[in-house]
Amino acid sequence: MKDATTLGVVVSLACLLLAVIVQTQGAASPDAAKLQQMTARFAPTDIGADLSKLSDADRRVLAKLVEASTIIDALFLRQVWAGNEAMLVDLVRDESPAGRARLRYFLVNKGPWSRLDHNQAFMAGAPAKPEGANFYPPATTKAELERWMQSLSEADRTRATGFFSVIRRAGNGFTIVPYNVEYQGELARAASLLREAAVIATEPTLKTFLTRRADAFLSNDYYDSDVAWMELKGAIEPTIGPYEVYEDEWFNYKAAFESFITVQDEAESAKLQKFAGELQDIENHLPIDPKHRNPRLGAMAPIVVVNEIFAAGDANRGVQTAAFNLPNDERVIREKGAKRVMLKNVQDAKFAKTLVPISRVVLAPADQPRVAFDAFFTQILVHELMHGLGPHNIFVNGRNTTVRQELKETYSFLEEAKADISSLFAIQFLIDKGTLPKPLEQTLYTTYLASAFRSIRFGVTEAHGKGIAVQLNHLLDHGGFVVRPDGTFAVNPQKIKEAVAGLTREIMTIQAEGDYAKAKALGERLGIVRPEVQKALNQLTAVPVDIEPRFTSAGTLLGR
Amino acid sequence: MKDATTLGVVVSLACLLLAVIVQTQGAASPDAAKLQQMTARFAPTDIGADLSKLSDADRRVLAKLVEASTIIDALFLRQVWAGNEAMLVDLVRDESPAGRARLRYFLVNKGPWSRLDHNQAFMAGAPAKPEGANFYPPATTKAELERWMQSLSEADRTRATGFFSVIRRAGNGFTIVPYNVEYQGELARAASLLREAAVIATEPTLKTFLTRRADAFLSNDYYDSDVAWMELKGAIEPTIGPYEVYEDEWFNYKAAFESFITVQDEAESAKLQKFAGELQDIENHLPIDPKHRNPRLGAMAPIVVVNEIFAAGDANRGVQTAAFNLPNDERVIREKGAKRVMLKNVQDAKFAKTLVPISRVVLAPADQPRVAFDAFFTQILVHELMHGLGPHNIFVNGRNTTVRQELKETYSFLEEAKADISSLFAIQFLIDKGTLPKPLEQTLYTTYLASAFRSIRFGVTEAHGKGIAVQLNHLLDHGGFVVRPDGTFAVNPQKIKEAVAGLTREIMTIQAEGDYAKAKALGERLGIVRPEVQKALNQLTAVPVDIEPRFTSAGTLLGR
Repeated sequence: MKDATTLGVVVSLACLLLAVIVQTQGAASPDAAKLQQMTARFAPTDIGADLSKLSDADRRVLAKLVEASTIIDALFLRQVWAGNEAMLVDLVRDESPAGRARLRYFLVNKGPWSRLDHNQAFMAGAPAKPEGANFYPPATTKAELERWMQSLSEADRTRATGFFSVIRRAGNGFTIVPYNVEYQGELARAASLLREAAVIATEPTLKTFLTRRADAFLSNDYYDSDVAWMELKGAIEPTIGPYEVYEDEWFNYKAAFESFITVQDEAESAKLQKFAGELQDIENHLPIDPKHRNPRLGAMAPIVVVNEIFAAGDANRGVQTAAFNLPNDERVIREKGAKRVMLKNVQDAKFAKTLVPISRVVLAPADQPRVAFDAFFTQILVHELMHGLGPHNIFVNGRNTTVRQELKETYSFLEEAKADISSLFAIQFLIDKGTLPKPLEQTLYTTYLASAFRSIRFGVTEAHGKGIAVQLNHLLDHGGFVVRPDGTFAVNPQKIKEAVAGLTREIMTIQAEGDYAKAKALGERLGIVRPEVQKALNQLTAVPVDIEPRFTSAGTLLGR
Repeated sequence: MKDATTLGVVVSLACLLLAVIVQTQGAASPDAAKLQQMTARFAPTDIGADLSKLSDADRRVLAKLVEASTIIDALFLRQVWAGNEAMLVDLVRDESPAGRARLRYFLVNKGPWSRLDHNQAFMAGAPAKPEGANFYPPATTKAELERWMQSLSEADRTRATGFFSVIRRAGNGFTIVPYNVEYQGELARAASLLREAAVIATEPTLKTFLTRRADAFLSNDYYDSDVAWMELKGAIEPTIGPYEVYEDEWFNYKAAFESFITVQDEAESAKLQKFAGELQDIENHLPIDPKHRNPRLGAMAPIVVVNEIFAAGDANRGVQTAAFNLPNDERVIREKGAKRVMLKNVQDAKFAKTLVPISRVVLAPADQPRVAFDAFFTQILVHELMHGLGPHNIFVNGRNTTVRQELKETYSFLEEAKADISSLFAIQFLIDKGTLPKPLEQTLYTTYLASAFRSIRFGVTEAHGKGIAVQLNHLLDHGGFVVRPDGTFAVNPQKIKEAVAGLTREIMTIQAEGDYAKAKALGERLGIVRPEVQKALNQLTAVPVDIEPRFTSAGTLLGR
């Protein structure tokens, strides 16, 4: 699972509003000016990290992993559409400015369809984006495949619906081709590079992961390497292989290749440890009826904060991933849990290229200097932690139940809103306690206000956007945020803390009482875009939607 | 089978001298200056044809075929090496001048190995070029595959050694994956485009070929479409599919994808018909003992003269193909014969970019204006026809035998020399007869002299180069060509005709008498590079070796 925006908005839903922002055309491919406008939504940004503290061996490991990642890029292109590589070769030959512009947008989207615009084709000659991607045979229908899958024995159906195989026509029927046959040459090369990296690596858990993942590329059995990934320690944190199933829009069965080559962020990892030691104290001071507090929190799910050195394949198309939870294999999750990986430098780039420009439009001049990345990222970290706090297992109408079961479809937006608003509460608590520095108070709320506009820009039809709208409107209604006569927004320091505590109390109490009706009413009343907010959003068309990362090549990592 | 140079030099052998011309380095990848020098051997040249006489429908057919050909390019890249597409994606991102230079040479060579330099790698990180390409499993030896093939049943061995399958590892053994599974997505897309072209096409034989070839892409059975290709008529002459086996350097079993999208050259085709009607008369006047003449020539093998609109895959890597004989399937050849396709505009480009510059270095100033493409191409056409004339089935020492059997390893160079020298004789005969225009005499021999240097430049170790050396030295010894005091070469019009007739007589008589000893002696005496010729060759380092074609895109063909 991956989050493409800083705060967890799912990419596929994130596109709704943007398709409107860029007035999309019909079947005709966009002209040069339109393509330029579409591409300008992605701000080119250098993405890297300070590697000066790494050993020479670690740098050589990274170079090998980056080299292996270029294979992931090519495999993902092939998985998206069988015509992609031909189109790339064709585009590369076109040295005209228009050709170069098409090539750039093709690489951003990993194909001829604009992912921000409902996959509208931007290249002449491109068909509609195949919903089953290149995972299923050409000229096949979903219904035909469903009938075939139903006709299979359970063992064969498991293989046919598994993550790591494609379906192909053979004779008069279908055949299941495992990834280690379908992509044999490419995976063997990637495996060789991982093995070369494993030989150079000094960290034992890294050696183990790389060796097992290389084995998995050849054997098609990823279990051992997923386990090894959960146990990774040390400076280098690589995620490389077939993982997410979003690209298979028919069945979400087939894993797309992706790669995140990252290094641990020591400062943030230390901060995370500090927060982990405070969680029970935060829970004990939540602004809710003490009976709803959890006297003994469970272990914190693993979170690592890293900086991205290279991303490839499914991890580098359209809107960039800012955080992800892996693995997806339920068996590994049951036995080992899942790990949340937060890409700090990607978040920082998004902050600089989108949030800061948004703040210059929507915030009052006096508030604009109070937008800070440290506040932004601390809030995201604490947001993740706060999912573990507050009511989960509840007792309602004489039954033991869960918040999820009781709140049904309202659960998601309310849980996202809870994690957000209570993160502000928790950070203020830690500031007041002296655990976090006092000046953070100056930037925390203003940064959050600007960030609310960034989130709502992606739409309020899915959980996170709706949760943000609930918070923004509540804080406006309670005077924590104010609209100034010129239409800009500002924080009111006198009222913001109480407004935050109040909404934290209201949401957590709805959760504790499993009150579906109240949850639904809250969403209907506040989960909307009000005219004054829409007016501000309308001024954001020139602000980039996301970044287009520019990475350092393997050669440059090695200084050649 | 394809000829990469105008006169039939086999590419793989053509590289010997060139590797010396460009001083090759060790394992290190070349620096920018060296890469520039390597790339400069290919002169960028627009390749196209006058399509104004084609119907709008025909132009749309061509656009579809060009689009299908881009798929061929991508498939060939994948066939050459499993790392190629990853490297391409990586190269494309590098916008530096050095990166652009590497990308250009990568596209010329269809991979990171310089085909003119014994496949020396020119990209850091590229391994040695895999001899079995991507047709066989990674980390396999030729011996291991041979043992496996020997262990198969005859039916399985036929499939394993066939043109249209790859071999992959599966479990503990190997498996045979047919092209229509291995490349299913890509071939289905190519098939769709061929079908769309077939719908638009008006020429029935073209419709049939395109439809059958589309069927073949899906069924993996190419026989019917090979037959349909032999029966093609009309303006558009497409050759698209898996054909040549050169890229499989282990076994020459596996067909590489290639595409030649061409249109008939009406003027040259008419000329060819005219020549065909003269062949018996030429035979009857060959300057040999009348008893060696063939009183009844057989039917001429099919030859078409075309202009190339687009070439892709194996048909566009390294030195460009100038003519080819297809199909390669022995069953089709037995039943339908093979067709020779001559790419006139490619020959013209090679003439302009290599032969003319060579003539400016090696010819006497007065001779330089007498180098003409019409003479060049007429000689090539007649060369092809002359292979059918002269002695073939002979009676020696009381036995019926063939020239090939008697002359053994000397056969090839002598047969090439025969076709060349007798083509000059035949053209002179047709000029004298009034069939060809008198002024052709002014350019014929001088053009041929310059062209001899172009051929010898590729080396004299293989048949054609050796055959050319024999002719050049004979004509020098008999005063038809002369070396001037300044080292340049010239034609002596007083002696050239007699010298040509003399060598024609000498070679054809050796052939008629099946005299192996004389053939061998002739090769040893004249099939060498003499000092005065070497001195001229040494001055050609700055002259391009070949062209780098720049084609019109499918979009431009449609005027978009």
